[in-house]
Amino acid sequence: MLIVKKFGGSSVANKERIFNVARRCVEDYKKGHDVVVVLSAMGKTTDELIAMAKNINPNASKRELDMLLTTGEQVSVSLMAMAMQAMDVSAVSLNAFQVAMNCTSRYGNARFKRIDSERIMNELDARKIVIVTGFQGINKYGDYATLGRGGSDTTAVALAAALHADKCEIYTDVDGVFTADPRVVSDARKIEEITYDEMLELATSGAKVLHSRSVELAKKYGVQMVVRSSLNESEGTTVKEVVKMEKMLVTGVASDKNTARISVLGVEDKPGIAFKVFQKLAKNSINIDIILQSVGRDGSKDISFTVAEDDLEEAINVLEENKEALTIKEIKHNARVAKVAIVGAGMMSNPGVASQMFEALYNSNININMISTSEIRITVLIDEKDVDRAVQAIHEKFALGEV
Amino acid sequence: MLIVKKFGGSSVANKERIFNVARRCVEDYKKGHDVVVVLSAMGKTTDELIAMAKNINPNASKRELDMLLTTGEQVSVSLMAMAMQAMDVSAVSLNAFQVAMNCTSRYGNARFKRIDSERIMNELDARKIVIVTGFQGINKYGDYATLGRGGSDTTAVALAAALHADKCEIYTDVDGVFTADPRVVSDARKIEEITYDEMLELATSGAKVLHSRSVELAKKYGVQMVVRSSLNESEGTTVKEVVKMEKMLVTGVASDKNTARISVLGVEDKPGIAFKVFQKLAKNSINIDIILQSVGRDGSKDISFTVAEDDLEEAINVLEENKEALTIKEIKHNARVAKVAIVGAGMMSNPGVASQMFEALYNSNININMISTSEIRITVLIDEKDVDRAVQAIHEKFALGEV
Repeated sequence: MLIVKKFGGSSVANKERIFNVARRCVEDYKKGHDVVVVLSAMGKTTDELIAMAKNINPNASKRELDMLLTTGEQVSVSLMAMAMQAMDVSAVSLNAFQVAMNCTSRYGNARFKRIDSERIMNELDARKIVIVTGFQGINKYGDYATLGRGGSDTTAVALAAALHADKCEIYTDVDGVFTADPRVVSDARKIEEITYDEMLELATSGAKVLHSRSVELAKKYGVQMVVRSSLNESEGTTVKEVVKMEKMLVTGVASDKNTARISVLGVEDKPGIAFKVFQKLAKNSINIDIILQSVGRDGSKDISFTVAEDDLEEAINVLEENKEALTIKEIKHNARVAKVAIVGAGMMSNPGVASQMFEALYNSNININMISTSEIRITVLIDEKDVDRAVQAIHEKFALGEV
Repeated sequence: MLIVKKFGGSSVANKERIFNVARRCVEDYKKGHDVVVVLSAMGKTTDELIAMAKNINPNASKRELDMLLTTGEQVSVSLMAMAMQAMDVSAVSLNAFQVAMNCTSRYGNARFKRIDSERIMNELDARKIVIVTGFQGINKYGDYATLGRGGSDTTAVALAAALHADKCEIYTDVDGVFTADPRVVSDARKIEEITYDEMLELATSGAKVLHSRSVELAKKYGVQMVVRSSLNESEGTTVKEVVKMEKMLVTGVASDKNTARISVLGVEDKPGIAFKVFQKLAKNSINIDIILQSVGRDGSKDISFTVAEDDLEEAINVLEENKEALTIKEIKHNARVAKVAIVGAGMMSNPGVASQMFEALYNSNININMISTSEIRITVLIDEKDVDRAVQAIHEKFALGEV
């Protein structure tokens, strides 16, 4: 079996943890498997490198920032190879140049285009454990470009796809994907299996365990992902195309406090105005989430939508600058809101799910601001202070803690 | 003019020094010159990385050690590019993969084979300052290999050769090459011009200012080197093929305390024995310097030679292990010795130089242990305690302090 295993920065933060990861990889290797390991930079290394750069030049080019940041993963992979060699196992570390991990040209936010499998395959054939730098690729200019948030998960999935790996294990500090955040819901249950689509909806609804881009890629290439703990031997959660039906309507509940609502009031009620509002925001790389548009009245209407809280200030600035062109009378915003979403493939054929969710919130005296749905997800916007109670009420209503 | 400028680790150890180097490079750039900068790792970075590696695995493979160490220069070059960008100058950093600095396969001690000039030339054509990682190359396996001691000087000279640079400036913390160590001889004088051969003899005789491999390479490709200070605007010392004759017999005096003498006593006086002694040492990468062999007597003879003090212990071990096969009766050693050498192209046609040197030592009551000469160098082995007095006496005898 060919297994790709990805470990994050905290899993390789010191000597003890590096050897812990090495042992887990060597175990699989000694069973006869081919093992490819993807690593992030150690501990807080990336943050420290960014601080160094800012100290020299707060406006450094992204090209040079990527050149600096990629050293972090190269340190991790070489030290890991040394640790495995100390355990008398043949291991080799490779960076993005050595593998030839070709990506798009955009520094700081590149995407993989093509990964050469030859070098890795040759090293595996020589019975080595291959350790690859996460988070980085080489663009068409022959330069390092990093992948942005969640980059190492994406590296692992992309490698698994290129190498036709049997599975891609993403190691984390939790036991897998849960029906809800275990810190909020005491009887939250680990999910054994989940579909790509469900995982994607959970990831975009605030579940932090996997980055949505890696799940998209896994779905595209049919890579079987396993999310599991680096701290114990628990089986984790498998993400794949079809899962055995557990007769659950709802798979899990997720919440996201990094949300703000913006309302633009009194805009002209004619075609194209809403489009122009969202186009201005998109041009500034601000993603819009839930949208609510009032019925026109007196020739004007109101548009409300949510953005990530991090983007709120910039979004307001963009709207203020274009207030006249967009025929906006007034701009309001509220950062003290949060999204709560339920996700489940079983929803598609069960129209009653939404009303059950709303009933749970009503019974807990929680007011719903906005609603958004997909085939397998229902999201509500509520007051931030109500989030934990909402997640608990919904988790109980759908009996997610019971198998 | 195309200028290659090399700065060592202490010149880029912190923000202030990085900007100091950036300013010096930008000055030349703004005069219209093409500027290529070669940097070492910041401050003590390389030592720190080696310590990290030893902590994980004291016997880590050199391949992985090189993978780790090369991150040091990549950090320097990217930060330098950011510093220049902060000064509104277009700059780009390149590592050994991006340039394509091809080298031999030996990790930790590689030599350059071929350097592609295309990428650098394209960046220079776009009017960028190009900043290249010193100390590293890419071997035939597509892996990083480092160059060993003095590696960044060698990178600078190799790049100057490949790019047909007009000169290669090696920046250091002294004003240039001196007639003797200014800390020992108060009237030591900076040498304006020196030939490659003289510089090579000085470098191998203990002058630390340039590594001999970089001088060899400069000689081979006719690269004009300039040794100058990173702390002031002083002109420095030019190293080139032919220098204007200053009517000096002797160019400079160098000394080296990192020397030990070994004597093997009573070996059989038959052909091949001396050869076998030195072969055993060479196999263990121990370099031999001055050799003295006694005339045979009673069918046996004594052989004395010097090694670097760092190699003494290993050399003794090798000899002890092979004592019987080499017919050695007794092994003696003395680490409290030092070499003092005078170097000068004028010596070739002046046979009286050696006796003047010996006279200076005799007048200072300094005993000579061993003597070794080349066409342009005379080296004596003396007691370590006498070194500074010897250098002073010789410097005065040849009036090296006077122009």
